[in-house]
Amino acid sequence: MDYEEPQFFRVMQYAATADRDVIDMVSGNPDWEPPEALRDALREYAGLDPAAFQYPASDGLPELREAIADRRGVDPDQVVVTVGTGEANYLAMARAFERDAGDEAILLDPVYPYYPGKVELLGGTQRLVPTARDGGIDLAAIREAMSDRTALVMVNTPNNPTGAVYDPDAVAEVVRLAERHDALVVVDEVYDRFDHSGRFESALAIDSPNRIVTGGFSKSLAITGFRVGYAITPPEHADSLRARHMLVNVTGPAPSQYAVHHALQATEHEYFAASRELLSDRIDAFTDALEAAGAEYTTPDGGFYVLARFDDFPGTMANVERLIDEAGVAGMPGETFGTAREEWIRFALVTPRAREAAERLAAYFE
Amino acid sequence: MDYEEPQFFRVMQYAATADRDVIDMVSGNPDWEPPEALRDALREYAGLDPAAFQYPASDGLPELREAIADRRGVDPDQVVVTVGTGEANYLAMARAFERDAGDEAILLDPVYPYYPGKVELLGGTQRLVPTARDGGIDLAAIREAMSDRTALVMVNTPNNPTGAVYDPDAVAEVVRLAERHDALVVVDEVYDRFDHSGRFESALAIDSPNRIVTGGFSKSLAITGFRVGYAITPPEHADSLRARHMLVNVTGPAPSQYAVHHALQATEHEYFAASRELLSDRIDAFTDALEAAGAEYTTPDGGFYVLARFDDFPGTMANVERLIDEAGVAGMPGETFGTAREEWIRFALVTPRAREAAERLAAYFE
Repeated sequence: MDYEEPQFFRVMQYAATADRDVIDMVSGNPDWEPPEALRDALREYAGLDPAAFQYPASDGLPELREAIADRRGVDPDQVVVTVGTGEANYLAMARAFERDAGDEAILLDPVYPYYPGKVELLGGTQRLVPTARDGGIDLAAIREAMSDRTALVMVNTPNNPTGAVYDPDAVAEVVRLAERHDALVVVDEVYDRFDHSGRFESALAIDSPNRIVTGGFSKSLAITGFRVGYAITPPEHADSLRARHMLVNVTGPAPSQYAVHHALQATEHEYFAASRELLSDRIDAFTDALEAAGAEYTTPDGGFYVLARFDDFPGTMANVERLIDEAGVAGMPGETFGTAREEWIRFALVTPRAREAAERLAAYFE
Repeated sequence: MDYEEPQFFRVMQYAATADRDVIDMVSGNPDWEPPEALRDALREYAGLDPAAFQYPASDGLPELREAIADRRGVDPDQVVVTVGTGEANYLAMARAFERDAGDEAILLDPVYPYYPGKVELLGGTQRLVPTARDGGIDLAAIREAMSDRTALVMVNTPNNPTGAVYDPDAVAEVVRLAERHDALVVVDEVYDRFDHSGRFESALAIDSPNRIVTGGFSKSLAITGFRVGYAITPPEHADSLRARHMLVNVTGPAPSQYAVHHALQATEHEYFAASRELLSDRIDAFTDALEAAGAEYTTPDGGFYVLARFDDFPGTMANVERLIDEAGVAGMPGETFGTAREEWIRFALVTPRAREAAERLAAYFE
């Protein structure tokens, strides 16, 4: 396994050592408060008997699995609690490849960089398929790309980096195509709580043995460091995911799972609505300033990323470093997300200084 | 990946539903107190800014990596913090196989059941090599088994289940053999704090690019559920371990790593000495009662497992279930640890009722 330092660490390090004030819009780390109940639960956990500090069930604390199943409307047997959504994706993708049903993964371009990394780790080959101009699913392109070699189609909605919320009918059609080609569709819904469009529908509504849904609490509870995610899998694949999870990690972290379970019990709809509203305000402030500056940009239907394009300033690492040094704003080069957004730069709205950042960009490109 | 319900869950479930009082000596979950500083640190963490709840560095909180490096006398660059020792073993074993240097893993019999499971997951083939009658390394047997097909030799000292503490010279010789055959030796030292013999020496003393050491805090700090372990790797393999760790799990749990780091800073030698003494007393009580009953047993040099053998009562799952029902003591069948201890039953001394358990066994076999 070759190790390529992830570009996003490289940008963050560059920004951290810059000789000026830099507004960090690189990572996907929420900067807002987790639910108070999460802090309380962690304090409570710290006082429990030693037995509570030992291995939880490998597939997750039973009460957490039940809470997830309840919220997602599935049977607890279908839920495997994982070390973040990252591990859930890894387990589901591994399942796709181990079935002797092809070695090719269809990834949608622009692509979240961990997906091609995982495909390579698992010995698969990737095939990048373009999305529509607006970031939506291009069914014709997917249909054309699929063959008996296809083992996996990876779908992420709401999407990082485009902010697209996929049409549920299009996702259902991708699953139908996958059934025909004996492929699995893994739908990563980690941004499901950040639907600004009102049009997001979980792929759990699609009844198919070829569909696995992944998700987690890193973004929705603002705790990327806690490492609590999950896969929801049809019975056909549940044993495989459980076995690999156990052999790789034994089990996930009990303190995190305990805290997340209690936070879920106590967290009302209002918490998630407040996060969405906070982001919505930042999106408005950021895109208004970009608009005033005459830049091209996306207004996300979901998630918390905005893509922006500036004239004669492609989304290369060199240009991102120039923006850090000369404008005091750090984003992610579009070239790190496949080929489809090489002209663009991604900005994560995980800072209260979003408007100020856009104004800096406007002044710089004036 | 086929999923076989781990035998140890099966035994624990059987014991939990038994219609009588059962002394649980199945799992490797410590029943004693973690350091008080660990509880304090978790409470402190619960009050930190949201930034502390986000992704730690993928290879671990820098201050934790430094603390581990410091204690182990290595450079922090060689330390990768993992999701328990289980993930550290997985990463190191994967590295052994990915080098195109053979597909065979030499495992010492009796064997910790996760090792063959991981070998299978990674597409390797296992070769069980017997240990000496006392559980020590049989160098001649290993020498004979090694060939150019050998990619990996898995070593665990202090050993689960035999309690053997390997002769450091023998481990060094295994590493020399591995160098000759282009194999890696992974030395799992998770029980390093439970050396009752005074003879344990870490394989870190062996300077070789073919040696990776794994360890963790699950046992030494009595927190199997926290999921904090580590691999210490020569520079040649560091990138591979880091890349796979990142692609599988992104990073480990921040609350756990924070708590472990603070516990390490505050935990004196006395804490570990007290755990050892507690276990030592339990070993004495348990083996004295077995001795009085005329049973054959091992007295562990390290770790917290005792193997016992009773006349005409082999270590099968059926017999272990009989012991639960008829004697009220739950152990692990020797047949689950390879072929070398099929006549034996393993008892984990993670209960204050060790003497009572041995007395129950004595009465049962009288």
